[in-house]
Amino acid sequence: FPPCPPAKNPDFPTAQLTGFMQIDTGWFEQDDANKAVLGDIQNGADFRRARLAAVGEVWENVGYMLEMDFAAGGRPSFMDVWFEIKNDEAGNVRIGQFRQPFGMDGQTSIKDISFLERGLPFAFLPFRQIGMMYYGNSEVEDTTWAVSGFRFPTDPFGGNIGDSGGYGGAARLTRLLIDHGDDGVVHVGAGYVYIDPANDFVQYQNQPEFFVSETGGSGLVPQGVPNNVPPFVDTGAMPTEHVNLINAEFGASAGPLHTQAEVFYSMLSRLNGSSVTFNGAYAQAGYVLTGESRAYNRKAGVFGRVVPDNPFGRSGIGAWEVAARWSYIDLNDEDIQGGRLNDTTLGLNWYLNKFTKVQFNYIHAFLNSSSATYGPIVKDSDADIIAIRGQVDF
Amino acid sequence: FPPCPPAKNPDFPTAQLTGFMQIDTGWFEQDDANKAVLGDIQNGADFRRARLAAVGEVWENVGYMLEMDFAAGGRPSFMDVWFEIKNDEAGNVRIGQFRQPFGMDGQTSIKDISFLERGLPFAFLPFRQIGMMYYGNSEVEDTTWAVSGFRFPTDPFGGNIGDSGGYGGAARLTRLLIDHGDDGVVHVGAGYVYIDPANDFVQYQNQPEFFVSETGGSGLVPQGVPNNVPPFVDTGAMPTEHVNLINAEFGASAGPLHTQAEVFYSMLSRLNGSSVTFNGAYAQAGYVLTGESRAYNRKAGVFGRVVPDNPFGRSGIGAWEVAARWSYIDLNDEDIQGGRLNDTTLGLNWYLNKFTKVQFNYIHAFLNSSSATYGPIVKDSDADIIAIRGQVDF
Amino acid sequence: FPPCPPAKNPDFPTAQLTGFMQIDTGWFEQDDANKAVLGDIQNGADFRRARLAAVGEVWENVGYMLEMDFAAGGRPSFMDVWFEIKNDEAGNVRIGQFRQPFGMDGQTSIKDISFLERGLPFAFLPFRQIGMMYYGNSEVEDTTWAVSGFRFPTDPFGGNIGDSGGYGGAARLTRLLIDHGDDGVVHVGAGYVYIDPANDFVQYQNQPEFFVSETGGSGLVPQGVPNNVPPFVDTGAMPTEHVNLINAEFGASAGPLHTQAEVFYSMLSRLNGSSVTFNGAYAQAGYVLTGESRAYNRKAGVFGRVVPDNPFGRSGIGAWEVAARWSYIDLNDEDIQGGRLNDTTLGLNWYLNKFTKVQFNYIHAFLNSSSATYGPIVKDSDADIIAIRGQVDF
Repeated sequence: FPPCPPAKNPDFPTAQLTGFMQIDTGWFEQDDANKAVLGDIQNGADFRRARLAAVGEVWENVGYMLEMDFAAGGRPSFMDVWFEIKNDEAGNVRIGQFRQPFGMDGQTSIKDISFLERGLPFAFLPFRQIGMMYYGNSEVEDTTWAVSGFRFPTDPFGGNIGDSGGYGGAARLTRLLIDHGDDGVVHVGAGYVYIDPANDFVQYQNQPEFFVSETGGSGLVPQGVPNNVPPFVDTGAMPTEHVNLINAEFGASAGPLHTQAEVFYSMLSRLNGSSVTFNGAYAQAGYVLTGESRAYNRKAGVFGRVVPDNPFGRSGIGAWEVAARWSYIDLNDEDIQGGRLNDTTLGLNWYLNKFTKVQFNYIHAFLNSSSATYGPIVKDSDADIIAIRGQVDF
Repeated sequence: FPPCPPAKNPDFPTAQLTGFMQIDTGWFEQDDANKAVLGDIQNGADFRRARLAAVGEVWENVGYMLEMDFAAGGRPSFMDVWFEIKNDEAGNVRIGQFRQPFGMDGQTSIKDISFLERGLPFAFLPFRQIGMMYYGNSEVEDTTWAVSGFRFPTDPFGGNIGDSGGYGGAARLTRLLIDHGDDGVVHVGAGYVYIDPANDFVQYQNQPEFFVSETGGSGLVPQGVPNNVPPFVDTGAMPTEHVNLINAEFGASAGPLHTQAEVFYSMLSRLNGSSVTFNGAYAQAGYVLTGESRAYNRKAGVFGRVVPDNPFGRSGIGAWEVAARWSYIDLNDEDIQGGRLNDTTLGLNWYLNKFTKVQFNYIHAFLNSSSATYGPIVKDSDADIIAIRGQVDF
Repeated sequence: FPPCPPAKNPDFPTAQLTGFMQIDTGWFEQDDANKAVLGDIQNGADFRRARLAAVGEVWENVGYMLEMDFAAGGRPSFMDVWFEIKNDEAGNVRIGQFRQPFGMDGQTSIKDISFLERGLPFAFLPFRQIGMMYYGNSEVEDTTWAVSGFRFPTDPFGGNIGDSGGYGGAARLTRLLIDHGDDGVVHVGAGYVYIDPANDFVQYQNQPEFFVSETGGSGLVPQGVPNNVPPFVDTGAMPTEHVNLINAEFGASAGPLHTQAEVFYSMLSRLNGSSVTFNGAYAQAGYVLTGESRAYNRKAGVFGRVVPDNPFGRSGIGAWEVAARWSYIDLNDEDIQGGRLNDTTLGLNWYLNKFTKVQFNYIHAFLNSSSATYGPIVKDSDADIIAIRGQVDF
């Protein structure tokens, strides 16, 4: 009998099919003032994200990802579409569209966050833009660093044009102050972004950390209601020379407990010469009732996902987690009166297995709309949201 | 020599790339009355469906499908996008967008039907909507059952909103009265659907079981002709409180012969208080000249596909089948005069192998347009259609 | 110990995930006359192509491809979407949308060409249309032949309709006059296309072999500038009875040197009875500094790609190639004054490995705009373009 042949080395290129889906349903309860400002927001169900991607390596030192989202506005919209030349010692170079290195919440995979959406100050992030990034980490992986240059604003299909401006840069540095591995860490980080927009406009807006929409055409929407959850806060388009954006990150974990907080400041130099400053922050905590911990992703400098010890089925019940967040954004300064929004969110997460979870969120949104915009009759208003998400990733 | 290692268990998640394409070409011959009612329908060629999907399991008891169609109107449109928790004994729970359990023709895979399109009463089906389904079958798989709740109407991207209404439910039960396995079966089934539409409108319409369209913009269409095969019957948008829809199914096979028939009633309670009722039916038969049988899919309660014993190539000629169908829909009741359409279709199917087929259809459409809509000058009209489809699935 | 089992035959269907991405960035320098004719073209970055495809076999003699481009206008647009019945001796039959057999530049994979875009006369090609092709090659693969019929013009989603006209045919024949295999070849070829357009219009236009665009909506574009690189030459829509199009091909390689040239004539019979003729040509050469040769693809009758002997990383520097092209299109005849464009391009290509390359192009475009269109004030104008592309395919 002949011996077994050696396992064949993987040939290049490799291409793995991967993706995920998020199926959302939600209910809105607004007070009268909130309805007067924003309209009567409708309950609904929707796919928040539905992605397919090819991920792989075309050579031992060249990797790539080509990811499309079929639920986002571009239908499909370009997500992570890049290739990179890898070098553990000298650092990696990534080219294409990717998440610009800024913000712990923004760098955390949307598949792994503890709530349905990232916190309110996410509105400030450049997030995915077309450009080039140089990044790496220290040998023991307690420090990560990244710098990038990009064109701004990149459209849903990964493009941007413009002769005067249209450029930006981002940088992020993180470090573990305490490092007990899976038993617990204390993470700090900071970031900086500079943007000179191609079209000389910047606009900040955000929805209350949950939304569903009807995108199939007006014939499918009830008469006289908004077909989307409108932005609760919105600066409108601001003629802008350039933007300086900074943030600070804190994260800590200890066994089944994890916490995270960030603060953001955005300084706009406007075309008319004057400057305005906006800010935001959030703080959150989660506790896994079944005892698992939320692992720290050392290469990315963010928290990863909860993996249940006893997956649901047969005798297991999966992992169960409770979480809470306070989140804040202030878009009022001088003549810009975009509003001020506080969100408090309570979450219950059921992890059936490593790749399946169901999330329940109760969100209370305190909106302070500027009287400059809406007149004296509308100032403070409230909305309550119940939202459920089912997610699988593969 | 070491022994061979045991076959490795598949790791989770699994993701199989799958899909299919349908390439259609067709010719239309209309009498003058038909042209007067519907315009001069153009011949053409088109992709009727072109789909890519990821299908797999993220755990031993959790499966998923994420399927997009690049030829349908949303380009791409959401098709089967769901995950499910599987339990052979207690029943399976599916969450996301899927074909609501109603109708034998509707539950049969479009890759496996004997003609190019489903029969005319397909217009009544809710078909793919976003929701949750509980389903299963008896241990010997001679009975299938399914109940579901969903939001309605779901748009091409899987979403729906609305505070008053926007819900529906569906149920289907099937049973084999005679069960000789592959030698032949007799199947009966029934279904029920309730719908309270989010936008308070329901519209029924259908094309004559074949269509091609020019969707690349008006510059590519000859002047003054419709850029699509228009609906032959159409109620227009009907203000609707809720809908009750019922059907009965019959199917039987014996060796190379298979038959199938369904009847449908739709009862609309309108916003103005009055009710209208529409109905439809079809009956069809197929005979495989080369002797193969059309297997019954016991888990889904529908007929599957013809698999040739001698695939085309070398000495084989594949499998050849003849098929015929009569199909009917009546959208006239009271002040709604959507028309009445009878289709008779003759089909010749060439199965080259298990995954490749070429289909030839001759369709004669008898249209009875209401004189209330088109005046006394147009009443009965006819159209003849020759259509060819090439299909591969993988 | 039991013997190792025989390697399992691949089961059908097979489906391989494949694709590629091209990330472009470019800078434009126009003289005043060029700006007056075309506007102030903006610098930018963009994905020129981003494709995912399933490729495989559903039977030993039936193959298929289902490819979508997420960067092209249809977003996604249908690319190669076909299946084929293969027979090495009798010839292969392909059905669906594919590149019609005409032109050496057009038949060369866009992943393998020496510059960023094909030469200017590419504007004449029918390229991808929906139809049927019969093709093959001689046993020693020194001759390729192909004939096809198709519908025209096929839209981005693979469809076309029209009763009078809407058909076309194409044919290509190539032969190696000298055949030293990898050491060098001399290739000649010729092609013919006949088109009777469905909509009775034909339009020829082209950009200067590079473009970036902003396709995310007007809010992302600087005010008052074109959001795309406009066509430098453009006939406008010409009412057309039918088109006769011919070309001749020449290619030769010797070690690290490769050359290629083509000439094209397009004769339009217009609806008003008169005829117009347009023409174009290009000639190009490339030399691989690191000594590799550009292999000839014997089955397709085109040149393939440069594969580096020493891929980049560790000690290797990949392969480096210099290339130059002159390219020409004349769209002036009688009352049609679409302009005349000469492009000279210098290229530097860095092949990191078989599947990764970075390309640098300097393009000088000499535009002769017709005084009939733009008046005596604008006649000759120039634009210089620097363009960089990163590409991986998998």
